[in-house]
Amino acid sequence: MDDLAEVEAAEEGLTKQIRNALEAEDAERLNALLDPLPYSEALREVLTLSADERDRLLNLVPTELAAELIEEAPNEMAVDLVERMEPERAADVLEELDSDVQADVIGEMDEEDAEAILSEMDEDEAADVRRLAAYEDGTAGGLMMSEVFRFPDRATVGAVLRMVASDDADFDRYRGQHPYVTDPDGRPVGVVSLRSLLTAKRSAALTSIMIEPLTVTVDTTLEVLEDIFDEHPFLGVPVVDEAGILVGVVSRTAVSDAVLERSESESLKRQGVVGDELRSMPLWLRSRRRLAWLSANIVLNVIAASVISAYEETLAAVIALAVFLPMVSDMSGCSGNQAVGVTMRELSLGLVRPVDAFRVWLKEISVGVINGIALGILIGIVAWLWKGNPALGLVIGLALALNTMLAVSIGGVVPLLLKRVGQDPAAASGPLLTTITDMAGFFLVLSLATLMMPWLLR
Amino acid sequence: MDDLAEVEAAEEGLTKQIRNALEAEDAERLNALLDPLPYSEALREVLTLSADERDRLLNLVPTELAAELIEEAPNEMAVDLVERMEPERAADVLEELDSDVQADVIGEMDEEDAEAILSEMDEDEAADVRRLAAYEDGTAGGLMMSEVFRFPDRATVGAVLRMVASDDADFDRYRGQHPYVTDPDGRPVGVVSLRSLLTAKRSAALTSIMIEPLTVTVDTTLEVLEDIFDEHPFLGVPVVDEAGILVGVVSRTAVSDAVLERSESESLKRQGVVGDELRSMPLWLRSRRRLAWLSANIVLNVIAASVISAYEETLAAVIALAVFLPMVSDMSGCSGNQAVGVTMRELSLGLVRPVDAFRVWLKEISVGVINGIALGILIGIVAWLWKGNPALGLVIGLALALNTMLAVSIGGVVPLLLKRVGQDPAAASGPLLTTITDMAGFFLVLSLATLMMPWLLR
Repeated sequence: MDDLAEVEAAEEGLTKQIRNALEAEDAERLNALLDPLPYSEALREVLTLSADERDRLLNLVPTELAAELIEEAPNEMAVDLVERMEPERAADVLEELDSDVQADVIGEMDEEDAEAILSEMDEDEAADVRRLAAYEDGTAGGLMMSEVFRFPDRATVGAVLRMVASDDADFDRYRGQHPYVTDPDGRPVGVVSLRSLLTAKRSAALTSIMIEPLTVTVDTTLEVLEDIFDEHPFLGVPVVDEAGILVGVVSRTAVSDAVLERSESESLKRQGVVGDELRSMPLWLRSRRRLAWLSANIVLNVIAASVISAYEETLAAVIALAVFLPMVSDMSGCSGNQAVGVTMRELSLGLVRPVDAFRVWLKEISVGVINGIALGILIGIVAWLWKGNPALGLVIGLALALNTMLAVSIGGVVPLLLKRVGQDPAAASGPLLTTITDMAGFFLVLSLATLMMPWLLR
Repeated sequence: MDDLAEVEAAEEGLTKQIRNALEAEDAERLNALLDPLPYSEALREVLTLSADERDRLLNLVPTELAAELIEEAPNEMAVDLVERMEPERAADVLEELDSDVQADVIGEMDEEDAEAILSEMDEDEAADVRRLAAYEDGTAGGLMMSEVFRFPDRATVGAVLRMVASDDADFDRYRGQHPYVTDPDGRPVGVVSLRSLLTAKRSAALTSIMIEPLTVTVDTTLEVLEDIFDEHPFLGVPVVDEAGILVGVVSRTAVSDAVLERSESESLKRQGVVGDELRSMPLWLRSRRRLAWLSANIVLNVIAASVISAYEETLAAVIALAVFLPMVSDMSGCSGNQAVGVTMRELSLGLVRPVDAFRVWLKEISVGVINGIALGILIGIVAWLWKGNPALGLVIGLALALNTMLAVSIGGVVPLLLKRVGQDPAAASGPLLTTITDMAGFFLVLSLATLMMPWLLR
C-alpha cells in the first residue's frame, strides 16, 4: 500500500506540473514532461485533463508529440481529438502519421471536418488519404499503407542500396518492407530478399534476383491476411487493386492490431458496450449509448416477465417459488453464456463455421446433460432442505436441469446461426440467449409447479 | 444458402478423404490433402477427427506438418496433442519448432512426460528448453526465443554478410533480427542497423558501426514490452539475465500474440469459461471445469435468494412484485456489466490504474444517475400501466434507479480493487457484481414495498 501511495503522490505531482505548464502556455516544458513517458502513460495523463485543457495541450505541444498521442489513442478518441483541432493544425499533425493511420482517422470523421483538414494537406497526400479512407475496414484496402518501398523493373541492386543508405526521411516509413519491383504499368512483378540483396553485385538488375511476390487484393479479408502471416514470416504483403496495380502494403503489425481490436470490441459488445467507450468521452454520449442497449434489454425483460405474470395464481399458492425463479433463470443464463464464450472463441480461431452448428450442438448437449443433472440435483436438495418440501425440490431441480440443457444448446448454436444470417454474434447472442432462458426457466418452474400443485401443498 | 451447401459438401468430401487416407495409412496422401490448406483450416480438419484418429494422423504425417499443426493449436491443446505422442516422435516434432514454442509446450506438461521427451532431444536444445520453460508466462523470459543472431565484438561486417548469404538453416530462425554484438562475457554491447551494414566496408569492425542496444531483463512484464514495441519500430528486443548476459530475443510477434491471448482469455473468463476450453477436449474435462465455476455461482445465487426468502410475507401480499424482481436484478446487472467492460478495456489500454478508483467512480456515478433515473421512470410506467397500481410503479422504478447507481459504481470500481489486492479482475468481477446487485435489487424492491404496503394494497 505504501508503494501505491507513493505512486499516487508522484502521479498527482506530474498531473499538477502538466496543468501548471499548460496554464503558463509553456510548450517546451509540456514536451519535457510528456515526451519521456511511454505513450500509453502520456495518453493517460492527457485524458485526465478536462476536454478543454486537452484541446489546448494538443495545440501547444510539438506536432510529433501530438501525432504520437493521436496514434496511441483508440480510434474513436483519436477522431474526436483531431476534429477539435483547427484544420490547419490537424493537417500538420496528421502529416506526421503513416497513411493507414491518417485514413483511419479521416475515414471516421464528418465529411465536412474531413474536407476542411484535407484541403490543408499536401495535395498528393490528401489524395492518398481519400483513396485509402474509401476502403472497407477489415479488408486489405482498409489496413494497408500507401507508402511502398518500390522500384521500377529496370532498377539495379545499387539503386536499392543507395536508397537504403540515403537519409531520405521516407525510408523510415518503409520499415521492414522488402523492395518490390513493378512493371511500367505498376503491376508487382517481384520481391527481393535481403539475402540476395546483400550478396548480389551492385550492377545486377533487380529482375535477375527477384522472386515472385505473394500479393493480396484490396478486398482480401482480415481472416485470410491472418492465415497468410501465420504461414509466412513476411513483415508485409503487397496489395493490388482490381486492375492488378500495386496500391499499398499491409504490414504484419497492422493485421495483428486489427485482430486484437476485433477481439476487444467483441468482448465489449458482449457486455453491452456498443462503440468504443472511454470514460474521457462526453457524459451524454456515454450515457445515451449505454441506455440504447439497456432499453432494448428492458423490452426483452418485460417479455420474459410476462411468463411469471401469467402464473400469478400458482405463485400465490406457493410463494417459495418466487425465491427460486431468479436462481433458475440466472444459473441457466450462466451455463448458456459459457457455451456462447466457447463458440465465439472457436469462431475467432477459425475452428468452427456456421455449417458446423449440428456438430457443435452435439458437443454442447453432452455437457448440458451432465451439468444439468448435476446442478438440478444440487439445487433440488437446497430447495428441499431450505423449505422442507421435497416436491418443491423436484420442481426446481427438474426445471434447472431441463433449462440448462436448453441454455447450452442455444448458447452454443446461436452465434453460428446469427453469423449465418449475417448478424453480429458478439452483440446479439447474449440478449437473445438470456431472454429465451429466462422465459423458459420461468415457464418450466411455474408450469411444473402447476402440475405438481397437489404435492407442493401437501 | 446454396453456397453454404456446396461448401458443406466439399468439406465433407475432404474430411472423408482424410479418413480414408488415414485408414490406408497413406502418409503421402494425408500430406497432400492437408499441406495446401491454411494452417487454421488444416487444424480444424484434424480436430474434427476422434482423439484416436488425431493421434494416428499426427504420427503418420511428416514432422514438419505435425509441427505446424502443433504450433497453430492453442497452447493447452498443443500440450495435449504432444503428450499423446511417443516421446521419440514428440522430440522430433518439437525440434522443428522455435525454442519459445518448445518451452511453452514443455512447460505446461507433467514433469514425467516432459522429461521423457527432453531426454530424446538434442542435449543442447533440451537444456535450452528447460531454461526457457522455467521463466514465468507473461515476462520477457517466458516470451523470448533463445535463437539469437549474435556476433562477438571482434567480428567484421564481412562475417555478418557471410552468415546472411550462407544457406545455414539456422538463419531462418533469426528472421527479422538485427545482428547483436556481445563482449567476451556475453553481454550485449551493440546492435547493427541494416542501413550501416549495407553501406559499411566488409572489413569494418562491427564495433565501429554498432549503436547501443535497448535491452530488457528476463522479468520485464508484457505491459512494458507492449510499450517498447509501440514506441520503436524494432522487430525484436534482446533479453539479458540478472548478470547482464544476453540470453534471448523477444520478437514483436511473440508480444502481440501474447497480448491477443491475454485479451481472449480474459473475455472467456468473464463468460465463466476458465482455462482454454475447445470442444475437441474430452467431455469430462469440459464438463468438470464449467461445473466448478457454476457451483460457486450457485452458492452466490442462494445467498442472494435468501433476501427474497426473508420477505415472503410482503411477496404474498403483493404477488405482482415477483414479476419484477428478476427484471430489476437483471437490468442492474446489465448496467454494472457495462461498467465492468469499460474498466477492463481501460485497464488493458493502460488508461486507468488501481489508484484511479475514485476518479472512475465519479465518472460512473454520473452515468448511473442519468441512466438510473431514465430506466426507473421507464420501468415504473410499465409496472404502473401493467398492474394498474401507481404505488407499484413507484416502488419498482425507485428500486431500479437506486440499484442502477449502485451497480455502475460497483462495476466500474470492482475490477480496480480486485487488481489492487492481486486478484484476477476478469474472472471475479462478474460474479461479485451480480451477487451484490441481485441482493441489493431484491432488498430494495421488497423493503420499499414493505414500507409502501398501505398504498400498494389500496
